[in-house]
Order: sequence, then structure tokens, then C-alpha cells
Amino acid sequence: MKDFFTTRHTVRQFTKDVVDDRLLTELIEAASHAPTTGNMQLYSVVVTRSEEGKAALAPTHFDQPCVSGCSVLLTFCADYNRFVKWCNQRNASPGYDNFQSFVTAVLDTVIFAQQFCTLAEMNGLGVCYLGTTTYNAPQIADILGLPAMVVPVVTLAVGYPAAEGKVSDRLPVDGIMHNERYHDYTADDIDRIYSLKESLAESKRFVEENGKQTLAQVFTDVRYTRQACEQFSKIYLDFIRNAGYSLPD
Amino acid sequence: MKDFFTTRHTVRQFTKDVVDDRLLTELIEAASHAPTTGNMQLYSVVVTRSEEGKAALAPTHFDQPCVSGCSVLLTFCADYNRFVKWCNQRNASPGYDNFQSFVTAVLDTVIFAQQFCTLAEMNGLGVCYLGTTTYNAPQIADILGLPAMVVPVVTLAVGYPAAEGKVSDRLPVDGIMHNERYHDYTADDIDRIYSLKESLAESKRFVEENGKQTLAQVFTDVRYTRQACEQFSKIYLDFIRNAGYSLPD
Repeated sequence: MKDFFTTRHTVRQFTKDVVDDRLLTELIEAASHAPTTGNMQLYSVVVTRSEEGKAALAPTHFDQPCVSGCSVLLTFCADYNRFVKWCNQRNASPGYDNFQSFVTAVLDTVIFAQQFCTLAEMNGLGVCYLGTTTYNAPQIADILGLPAMVVPVVTLAVGYPAAEGKVSDRLPVDGIMHNERYHDYTADDIDRIYSLKESLAESKRFVEENGKQTLAQVFTDVRYTRQACEQFSKIYLDFIRNAGYSLPD
Repeated sequence: MKDFFTTRHTVRQFTKDVVDDRLLTELIEAASHAPTTGNMQLYSVVVTRSEEGKAALAPTHFDQPCVSGCSVLLTFCADYNRFVKWCNQRNASPGYDNFQSFVTAVLDTVIFAQQFCTLAEMNGLGVCYLGTTTYNAPQIADILGLPAMVVPVVTLAVGYPAAEGKVSDRLPVDGIMHNERYHDYTADDIDRIYSLKESLAESKRFVEENGKQTLAQVFTDVRYTRQACEQFSKIYLDFIRNAGYSLPD
């Protein structure tokens, strides 16, 4: 069982086989039994199967091939809309138009999405998380017709794997675990923790292909730049506010 | 396999049996193979086993009995500290002191925590999520000695289950799934989606015990009040800013 978890990996290329509607619904139903805050289930998932739907969403995910190449695209959204409608219909006064509630809904949403991911992988499907969801939330919301209080958080591309995937490296476990108190990292710790990753042929290729001196520079200068992080910070935070979650000063 | 996921449930009461250190480390190591943004692993987990550690943390979780009653308490933190130290040590200029980066780290952290939860449950352990982690982040950070860019997100109480647990109800799956576009809920939809939950003996007892007219009022007036949500919004957002993640206006 543990081996399944340590050898799982992201799948970005899929066969043309369709993920059966009944299987998909069963997996989503099973995933909904994952933990959720106060059993409120503060999430929704929008299923995109149509070619038009995928084509509309593709640019919001920077045209990653797995968006058009997958069988089904699942956009997981933090959702207080349903719960607040229920409260209003039951003579209750909801106070969930704030940041804490948004965070709570995000936790529920990601727990649910990850449980779905595990279930899908256990059933022979391949899954790719699209982190671009928070970058282009306004366009995604527009395409999917999301009402107030519904915020896209993660998207999963799902299908049958087209090829053997590659298991990624991970940091040594003592690099992410702390005993009783957080022991901050010394320069030697950092060297040790990242040494395996830096020694991989794939990492060296990344550095070379991007004309950089270090692997860290590939992250800071190419993959996740300050300019992009700051731009998308503003877009996402504005979207959250406009969706009805106010932020204190 | 699906049955395992649909019958899983939160465990709040534990036996005195200790979760073996080796098992815990194995489960955390396996969970770290869960998906992570750009393979950055933007999280840390702080392990609390000592009686003193649990006693110090108990008030931050409003003295829920599972905090002192569990074998081990795991505080999962969004963590750019390690990654930024690596960047700085490798002649790279990190631009991760912003909201988008914070959200990315939260996603990584929750995916990791949920994968741990599933692995723990599959290995006969019981787990309880403590949503109080985001409420009292400043005190938790102080107790655990968290440096800048490390933000507590979720805590899991872990141990061997003391008794048969109860499987919670969930909304019907069509209440959380949308086909191609979000279909907003009509008043009839809301009635139908929440009817099972409202009909449960447990729900009726909650309403009565709290002297309310509807189950929704138990949520809005007792469990998750506007006053508390707004208070904890400010505390958490201030904490995030102070931890080094700036927010655009």
C-alpha cells in the first residue's frame, strides 16, 4: 500500500479513452467523504468534458497540452454560495463574507481535491494538478459561470495514462519534519537537503537549457518569477474580494 | 477500496497506544510524494509528542480533548523559509514574499496533510483535523518556534482509535457537482440538497440543545459566528503579513 503512494506520479499525457461518467461520479462521491470543516463541504467541482469547454479554458491554463488532451477537466472551487443560500433560507444570518471563511473553504476544497486525486490514481487514472487556476481565476469564473462566493482553487486534468510516468524526487524526510520545535536550517542543512535534487541529470539539464548557473535560478528567474507572483497576487486577491470575501485592513 | 473511503471518519478518542516513531516517519515520507507545485514542497510538519508540548498547544485549540488525548499532534505549516534560504544560498533572487506564493504554499501543505491523513487511516490510525490552527496561528507559531515565512495551516491529532467511529452524512453528490457550467441553486435545490442532513436525529438534537429553530442557526449563531470569523480573519491576515507575505492593496 505504501509503495503505491511512494511511486505515484503526475500524468500529463493521456490516451483517447474516456473516463466513464459513472466512474467519475463514484470517485467524486467517495472523495466527498474526506474530512471537511464542521461537515459544511465548502466546495463545488465543475466538470468540463466538452471540446468547447476545454478550448475555452485552455488559455487560462497557458495552453498546457494536458488541458485539451485529458478526458475530463475538474475545476475545484471554494464555495460558500450553497451554504449561505441554505442559511438565508433557514432564517439564519451567515457571517462568512470574510478572509477566515475563505481560508476555511480553501482547506475543504483542497482536501476534497486531493482525496479525489488519490482515488482516481488508485483506479488506474492519471491526474495532473494545474496551479494556473489561481493565476487566471477571473477568466475561469467567467467561463464556468461562477456566482459570488465561489472561487476556483485547483484544477485537475484527468484521463487514462498514455505512457509510463516518472516518479519525481523528494527532499529527504528529515528536511521537512521538525521534532517538538521548528529547527531552522543552517547553510549546511540547506546544502544537504537539496543535494540530491541538484545532482539529478534532469536538474542539470534544466539549468543548462535555461542558461542559468544554479537550479534555484531556474525557479526564481524562469518558472516562478517575482513579477508573475506579484501580478497574480493582485489579480487573485481582487477576485477574492469581488467574490464577496472582504479583507480587513 | 472505494468502501474504505466512503466509510472513513474522524476519530477524536484515542487509546494510550503510542504511534511508533518509525511508522510516523514512514507515513510522512510516503505522504511527501503527494503532488506539489513545481516539486517545491512548500511545507513543513512539526511533530509534538511531549506532554509539555501538547499542554502548551491545547489552549490554542480551545482545549479540545483530542489534543492531550492523542499520541502525536502534527502541525502542518506553509513554508517558504527553506526554499528561500536555498535560493539565497544559490545566487538566486526569490520573489515569494507575496499573497500568491502564500496560497501556493497553502495548497502544497493541505495536499500533503490530506495524503498523510489517508495513509494514516489506511494503517489503522485515527485522525482528527483541528480547524482551530488558523484561528490561533500567532500563539502556535510562538510555541513551535516558527521563523518568518512559516505559517500554521492545519493540525492533525493522530493515534489509535479508542472506539468505533461514526460515519458522517454528506450532501448528495449532485449537490456538489456541476456539468460544464455552474448551475446556481434554486430554493428547491437547497431544500432537496440539505433535506437528508436536516432530517437526521443528530441534527435535530443539535437544534434542540442549542435552543435554535433551524440547523443553519446552529452554524451561524453558535459554531461559526460572524464575530468569531471576523476576529480570526484579522488575526490570521495580520499573521500572514507579519510572516513576510505582503498583500497588495
